[in-house]
Amino acid sequence: MVHYSESTNISPPLSGGQLDIYRKQASFKLQNMRIAIEDPERTAIKMKVWTYLESDPAYWPTNKILSSDEEKHKTAKLLEKFRNSKLFDSLHSWDYKTRTRYLITLNQAVEMLNANLSIKFALGVSLFANALLCLGTQRHLKYYKDVWSGKILSCLAITELAHGSDTKRLKTTATYDHLSNELVLNTPNIGAAKCWVGNLGRQSTHALLFAQLIVDNICHGLHAFIVPIRDPETLIPYPNITVGDIGEKDGLHGIDNGYVIFHYYRIPKECLLNKIGDINENGEYETAFTNPQELLGAALESLSAGRVAILQESSNTLIKAIVIAVRYSAQRLQFSDGEGNELPILEYQTHQWRLFPFLAASYAFKSFMHDFDEQYINVVADSREGRINVAHLPQMVKGIHAIVCTTKALITWTTQTAIQECREACGGHGYHKAAGFGDLRSNHDPRVTFEGDNTVLLQQTSNWILRLYNDPDLDSEMFPLSEVSFIKNKDIVLQRKYRNDVSIISDKFIMETYEWLICWLSKSTLEKMNNLRKQQKDKFLIRNQTQVFKARTLSLVFAEFLILTYFIKKCKSCSNDVRPVLYKLFNLYGLWSLHKHLAVLYQGGYCEGPSFGEGLSEAVLRLCSDLKPEVVALTDAIAPPDFVLNSILGCSDGKVYERLMEAFNLPDATANFNEDSILLQSKL
Amino acid sequence: MVHYSESTNISPPLSGGQLDIYRKQASFKLQNMRIAIEDPERTAIKMKVWTYLESDPAYWPTNKILSSDEEKHKTAKLLEKFRNSKLFDSLHSWDYKTRTRYLITLNQAVEMLNANLSIKFALGVSLFANALLCLGTQRHLKYYKDVWSGKILSCLAITELAHGSDTKRLKTTATYDHLSNELVLNTPNIGAAKCWVGNLGRQSTHALLFAQLIVDNICHGLHAFIVPIRDPETLIPYPNITVGDIGEKDGLHGIDNGYVIFHYYRIPKECLLNKIGDINENGEYETAFTNPQELLGAALESLSAGRVAILQESSNTLIKAIVIAVRYSAQRLQFSDGEGNELPILEYQTHQWRLFPFLAASYAFKSFMHDFDEQYINVVADSREGRINVAHLPQMVKGIHAIVCTTKALITWTTQTAIQECREACGGHGYHKAAGFGDLRSNHDPRVTFEGDNTVLLQQTSNWILRLYNDPDLDSEMFPLSEVSFIKNKDIVLQRKYRNDVSIISDKFIMETYEWLICWLSKSTLEKMNNLRKQQKDKFLIRNQTQVFKARTLSLVFAEFLILTYFIKKCKSCSNDVRPVLYKLFNLYGLWSLHKHLAVLYQGGYCEGPSFGEGLSEAVLRLCSDLKPEVVALTDAIAPPDFVLNSILGCSDGKVYERLMEAFNLPDATANFNEDSILLQSKL
Repeated sequence: MVHYSESTNISPPLSGGQLDIYRKQASFKLQNMRIAIEDPERTAIKMKVWTYLESDPAYWPTNKILSSDEEKHKTAKLLEKFRNSKLFDSLHSWDYKTRTRYLITLNQAVEMLNANLSIKFALGVSLFANALLCLGTQRHLKYYKDVWSGKILSCLAITELAHGSDTKRLKTTATYDHLSNELVLNTPNIGAAKCWVGNLGRQSTHALLFAQLIVDNICHGLHAFIVPIRDPETLIPYPNITVGDIGEKDGLHGIDNGYVIFHYYRIPKECLLNKIGDINENGEYETAFTNPQELLGAALESLSAGRVAILQESSNTLIKAIVIAVRYSAQRLQFSDGEGNELPILEYQTHQWRLFPFLAASYAFKSFMHDFDEQYINVVADSREGRINVAHLPQMVKGIHAIVCTTKALITWTTQTAIQECREACGGHGYHKAAGFGDLRSNHDPRVTFEGDNTVLLQQTSNWILRLYNDPDLDSEMFPLSEVSFIKNKDIVLQRKYRNDVSIISDKFIMETYEWLICWLSKSTLEKMNNLRKQQKDKFLIRNQTQVFKARTLSLVFAEFLILTYFIKKCKSCSNDVRPVLYKLFNLYGLWSLHKHLAVLYQGGYCEGPSFGEGLSEAVLRLCSDLKPEVVALTDAIAPPDFVLNSILGCSDGKVYERLMEAFNLPDATANFNEDSILLQSKL
Repeated sequence: MVHYSESTNISPPLSGGQLDIYRKQASFKLQNMRIAIEDPERTAIKMKVWTYLESDPAYWPTNKILSSDEEKHKTAKLLEKFRNSKLFDSLHSWDYKTRTRYLITLNQAVEMLNANLSIKFALGVSLFANALLCLGTQRHLKYYKDVWSGKILSCLAITELAHGSDTKRLKTTATYDHLSNELVLNTPNIGAAKCWVGNLGRQSTHALLFAQLIVDNICHGLHAFIVPIRDPETLIPYPNITVGDIGEKDGLHGIDNGYVIFHYYRIPKECLLNKIGDINENGEYETAFTNPQELLGAALESLSAGRVAILQESSNTLIKAIVIAVRYSAQRLQFSDGEGNELPILEYQTHQWRLFPFLAASYAFKSFMHDFDEQYINVVADSREGRINVAHLPQMVKGIHAIVCTTKALITWTTQTAIQECREACGGHGYHKAAGFGDLRSNHDPRVTFEGDNTVLLQQTSNWILRLYNDPDLDSEMFPLSEVSFIKNKDIVLQRKYRNDVSIISDKFIMETYEWLICWLSKSTLEKMNNLRKQQKDKFLIRNQTQVFKARTLSLVFAEFLILTYFIKKCKSCSNDVRPVLYKLFNLYGLWSLHKHLAVLYQGGYCEGPSFGEGLSEAVLRLCSDLKPEVVALTDAIAPPDFVLNSILGCSDGKVYERLMEAFNLPDATANFNEDSILLQSKL
């Protein structure tokens, strides 16, 4: 168990035990690094949330396994408490940007302590409220007020039993009935049952439903509807709806995921969220193309907002995992050197190589997320308020979508790999529930397939890059196209080759090599597509057969490049004190990532002979070694308070064996050894 | 829920739903493949065990989450029932080989249904009984009888709170007291508390303890002792012992892992398992070097037996995961081709590439395990009975140890990766508890760090290969050295280069390339070691700094090579009907594994230019495509009965949506849609 007092203040220097030996070796001041890596305003929001959560024992984490009924009950109670906290008091007086920044930061803080609560709140309140503003109109404002005041609780119903990724195939229909001026919701077959809907299993009073809108036998595609599900007073479902809990899952046991089947269930026409399309007074479908900015802005947000949250949550999960593993490694002794001294396992090259690249990735992802979501909020706000040139909007929306898709895949997969590597790097004790890895893994796991399956999302990004690759009009000055402006010079980029006199450990080498990789993989993918086209293959087949080793790799390489682009800006703009170590992290993340593409670099002729591969490998190992004196302080700079980290192996006070004893239920063990040992010794 | 009837007979052809469309496409007879891949005698043992387990509802799996108290209670009750089953009636009349083969096959069958029960039984009964025979003498036979008759329950106490991998550093002592002729067990400090000991938390009456034996102030190293822990009647712990449960874990919730602290706890001298070393009547330590064969045979078994079981269990876990994913993929439709037909996702190249190599790995691992554990049992039996030349034994023991260490790492890691890939390939539904992946992952997870941490084990194997690399006397005819006889010709092997006229899809190419990889990585590792030696680095540092990209890769490459060596023998010796498809699986596993080392092949000059990498990639994809008509039948040939597979997504009857509905608690949904739909349709 982690002590709850004294841990909330993130600003003071941390100290304790063997960790201090490493802390003293760091080249930078902790406070400077904290400021460099996170806007103090955001840190302050997080601290406010954590202080509130710590002040009430109901929020304190336990490591006891509860039945999923108990977990759901507990999460529901916490949500009620949380909604009534003072954290939202000023919210509705703020402008869009301030409110959004506050909510996404609050979401991160809550998620780091309790993933169930943050998801239940997001699905039930904040994402729903946001979707109402984006997709609804004046007539839906009452729901906005009701959900914030706690009168209703929502959920987002999209996925169907037999269809997830291919949203065009979703079968639930909302058919307009001229006679009654109502919409009739129907589930045509069991495969169309909405399922996996968080909060719907037991609690939701309303669903934000996505269904095919049919007016006069014409299907107008997916639209969003607000659908009453249960009586808010009694929670009894309305007639003509079959609704229930989908049962046990592998994690997130506090969320009541549910299903719903509609049996020609009637709702008022006004339940259609009608900003994008509406049914007019004559019962005809019409789209609101009079204001395309709003339309696109709304589409942008409803497409990407959930994924941006996933990116942040994944980055934070990665941080938790690596903080635990690095801190424990600095205290755990195994094997001894030539002189018989037992060494902390942090001293071993293999261990450094297993962990430090993930620490570098934590900093890289955090830099990217921090600046990208500022840009994202700005773009959405600007588009809502008409400050963006209408002609540019479609390109911006597509570009942001492409960035979000591939970074979602890269960041969620990297985090997943990191959790496992960190758990193993902690040895057997890493399997104890109080170490924290099991819950991190189980709760992170759905992120790789929900809000778009990673494998499918990667295709969206590669399609976008491949279109740009052959676009002579590529407008390079506008975000986010500015990030890929080098593609204009693809012919020059492709002529690059590694020269022995170039320093591998440099941002110039890393970024130029990534540019070459993106151009070469684009070219190679297009060539394969052309070959298949010559064989008379159809478009569908061509796309499917150019993913593996080609378009898929291209997408992931592009994600790494993007993250490095943001990270290098951070390195260049930060204070002198922290710049050298941030550069080392940049170089390590860049070269470690490049190392995974070493075969492509050889295959494409970017390099040849043994020295390049050898040099790249040695550079990675040298950077790991160079970073060793810094890593404990680097974890301090990104770690949440011990209360939030909630791991016996990762506390900042360096008392790992005391906490292990506590978690293992070893009662008063220290007392036993201090007194009894001596007593018993004399008996022998 | 899986139906329990009709599923136990593994021999008849399977049928049902959309799976049959693929089943009909297979080129081989199911029965022939089953016989080719598993000795029918072993299959019969498994069927006997499964039939027994299915006959009693107490053993039936549930997908309900129990508290860990409930899980422990349930597992303890099942163990009692299982010990009293008729499965062990003839056991003690059989010879060593028959008994061992029976027990390891039985263990596999039980583990595939209930990992908790198999572990509890192994630690509590079979591994303990086996260790007694290996390490004990006549005076310990009473424990052997007692543990089989259920009078006592054991556990294996090795790991300490602060030491796991480095067994030399274990601190628990057993000091001989001349006056009383007793051994005094002591835990000198809290870091020496034995922990993670399965069965010890609540139930064990006896522990097989490993502690430092001290006689007359001289430490003779780790020895094994039988230590009474609790009164078998009351389960009350004896005085001067602190024992308890270590608390919640990330999986295996049915096992009561415990800790124990000894406070100068006295046991009779006869509790020392004295086959290897003993304290004689004069109170002097002596080792029984009069019979080195027995000594080494015993050491061999106690070192490797647990790991061999882990290899088998991992292979079986991999089989369960891939069977579920392939069967579901054959039924799950997503997206549509140019003509609007929705396709099973098995048709997509990306999906094939994600899954089929793991199916190939399942066959490769199963072939390896099947034949290697026969060899292993034979060697142990031969050494026990004095049929092996004494001069050869040390080399054999080291060789088997080297094989087990690296294949343990490769197989457990591959299985871990496969579980995750399969879970993701099943999309969101893969996250439902009834899909089965969550439990597979949680229960598999400890295998990568227990019985030797994979990273540490890999070093044992690379040390062994590097010694052989420079050994001019390498005796190549004797198992297991025969497996590495090509090293004698290293100078010729290292001159190999890929030539364009060679067919990549061939066992000749694959095996020769692996030989080159092993020689090149050995040479490259030794060169790096020599460079460090010239810089005056000490031996400890040199070893640590030549693991990453060098010795570690060498070990893993060697494991792949070994598994391919066994697999190709299987391909060559099997019946004509199944040979072509087994060759395809061999080629896919071989080339997919080689693809991971593509950068090394370029770096070392084995190949150059774009065509090799391109060719290797295309070969992998072509084999995936070639195997598509076979994969459903291939899963049928290795799948356990549905009752044991216990996954809503993986049943052999192809009724995936019916089972999903059941698991999701959709009540009578089919009825609703057959009648109500029509009824309601008319109302609209």
